[in-house]
Amino acid sequence: VGEEKIYEWTADYAGVWMYHCGTSPALHHIANGMYGMVIVEPAEGLPPVDNEFALVQSEWYLGPQGDITDLAKAAAAAPAPDFVVFNGVANQYVDAPLAVGTGESVRMFVLNAGPSVDSSFHVVGTIFDTVIKEGVVLRKGNPGSWGAQAMDLSPAQGGIVEFTTAEDGLYPFVTHAFNFVGRGALGLVQAGDGDPLN
Amino acid sequence: VGEEKIYEWTADYAGVWMYHCGTSPALHHIANGMYGMVIVEPAEGLPPVDNEFALVQSEWYLGPQGDITDLAKAAAAAPAPDFVVFNGVANQYVDAPLAVGTGESVRMFVLNAGPSVDSSFHVVGTIFDTVIKEGVVLRKGNPGSWGAQAMDLSPAQGGIVEFTTAEDGLYPFVTHAFNFVGRGALGLVQAGDGDPLN
Amino acid sequence: VGEEKIYEWTADYAGVWMYHCGTSPALHHIANGMYGMVIVEPAEGLPPVDNEFALVQSEWYLGPQGDITDLAKAAAAAPAPDFVVFNGVANQYVDAPLAVGTGESVRMFVLNAGPSVDSSFHVVGTIFDTVIKEGVVLRKGNPGSWGAQAMDLSPAQGGIVEFTTAEDGLYPFVTHAFNFVGRGALGLVQAGDGDPLN
Repeated sequence: VGEEKIYEWTADYAGVWMYHCGTSPALHHIANGMYGMVIVEPAEGLPPVDNEFALVQSEWYLGPQGDITDLAKAAAAAPAPDFVVFNGVANQYVDAPLAVGTGESVRMFVLNAGPSVDSSFHVVGTIFDTVIKEGVVLRKGNPGSWGAQAMDLSPAQGGIVEFTTAEDGLYPFVTHAFNFVGRGALGLVQAGDGDPLN
Repeated sequence: VGEEKIYEWTADYAGVWMYHCGTSPALHHIANGMYGMVIVEPAEGLPPVDNEFALVQSEWYLGPQGDITDLAKAAAAAPAPDFVVFNGVANQYVDAPLAVGTGESVRMFVLNAGPSVDSSFHVVGTIFDTVIKEGVVLRKGNPGSWGAQAMDLSPAQGGIVEFTTAEDGLYPFVTHAFNFVGRGALGLVQAGDGDPLN
Repeated sequence: VGEEKIYEWTADYAGVWMYHCGTSPALHHIANGMYGMVIVEPAEGLPPVDNEFALVQSEWYLGPQGDITDLAKAAAAAPAPDFVVFNGVANQYVDAPLAVGTGESVRMFVLNAGPSVDSSFHVVGTIFDTVIKEGVVLRKGNPGSWGAQAMDLSPAQGGIVEFTTAEDGLYPFVTHAFNFVGRGALGLVQAGDGDPLN
């Protein structure tokens, strides 16, 4: 308690990485939010975009009010989280949308911290022209002009998606495992004034 | 009620796409079957094959007999669907197998409409020589001659698999999350007369 | 009973394949451990590495003591396995770690036999420089030097991961769906003497 440790390391591989403590039980620590995201870009950098955001999906298994998370609930063989959230707080980007200029390019670094359920990350109204999931790349301008609608991330996987908004509007982002959308896994990208009709 | 809307758009990206209404609660609408699949081929088309099929996997969360689906059941944190089906009806392609000629090439467009559980799409007795999942391509004739046995699709993901049947027979297709096979996620491809022994 | 069958086939596609019997109910047979892994390397072989291991993740749904697995439990719509294990036995590689030389290259062939839950295969303290999942390849030395931290395998998917240990130590491997780590889905790779401090 009260001590401090410094880790120094060389980032040999590009990616969107999860770190978390290994103190036992690690499940309880992760379920309490003791994790983070490390973004390592290639040595030559990523192509410039107009907007970058970092989103971590995770689950909350509530204990009593004011107390830490419920380890037994988090350890259930069929995980049933009370909330599934982005950056720790249910629906926070509904209340405060991520603002971008219409037609601008958007890059999102996405990590699924779990601890236990998958993510099917999707931004409603857009198509990802670029996806880099755990190093596997779908690049804009690929032969066939294939795009992607959702990036599947199992717990401890991370990736990058890129898209452009076509017009002013509110573009919801979710995990498209839709049972979780009503449990906090909902945010908004606001392009321009957020209204496609004016 | 009774009105009609027409959406027109340019298909900029090839893929197997899900559409669904966004009326709240979207979960209830999707769970009632209000979704569809859009197939966008590359501008130059896909290579010709002998047979093409389109399959949408989805879940049913039954309400009372004659009523719509049960929203509370669909919204469970640990989703427990009553049925998991292809194209809306449990086991329909067991009763009416998809017929192909033995040795012919088969392409399946597969969408997981969810709303909430993953698919591990597999055709028993075959190996996929080509997979295009959310734009990432495994192509026949790749260096190493790698093949695939299952295509994992999280909710709202789509893809294409291609294979050839080696001999007359019945080739079951499933999500290989095998707890769901007995809940309707089973169909048959019938090659030739369906009997490998005559 | 007591009969023997021999299957002969030509391995046309490289991969990490699952086989299992198709006797009905197949779910019960798979849940009782009646499956196996077939590794098919490319015709020219895989690049040499210092260590190779084969790991099959699977679930146990316990019946009464001394009896076979519980089919009803395995068939639950929300699967809740009692144990999730590597090569059939909970925590066996905690008791007997997989020994490698520090700094040596390690290749793991990984299959998720299910029957029903996904794997997010991860080796704590390492980064995969090479991943071949269902034929899709992330190769060491790729443009950008991307690496991978976890390989997601749905039931009946298989793949290959490669990594190197940086120093003497114990490197846990898990499915990073962390609710399962306490249910047997934990093993250790021991590099050198297993102690980073001496």
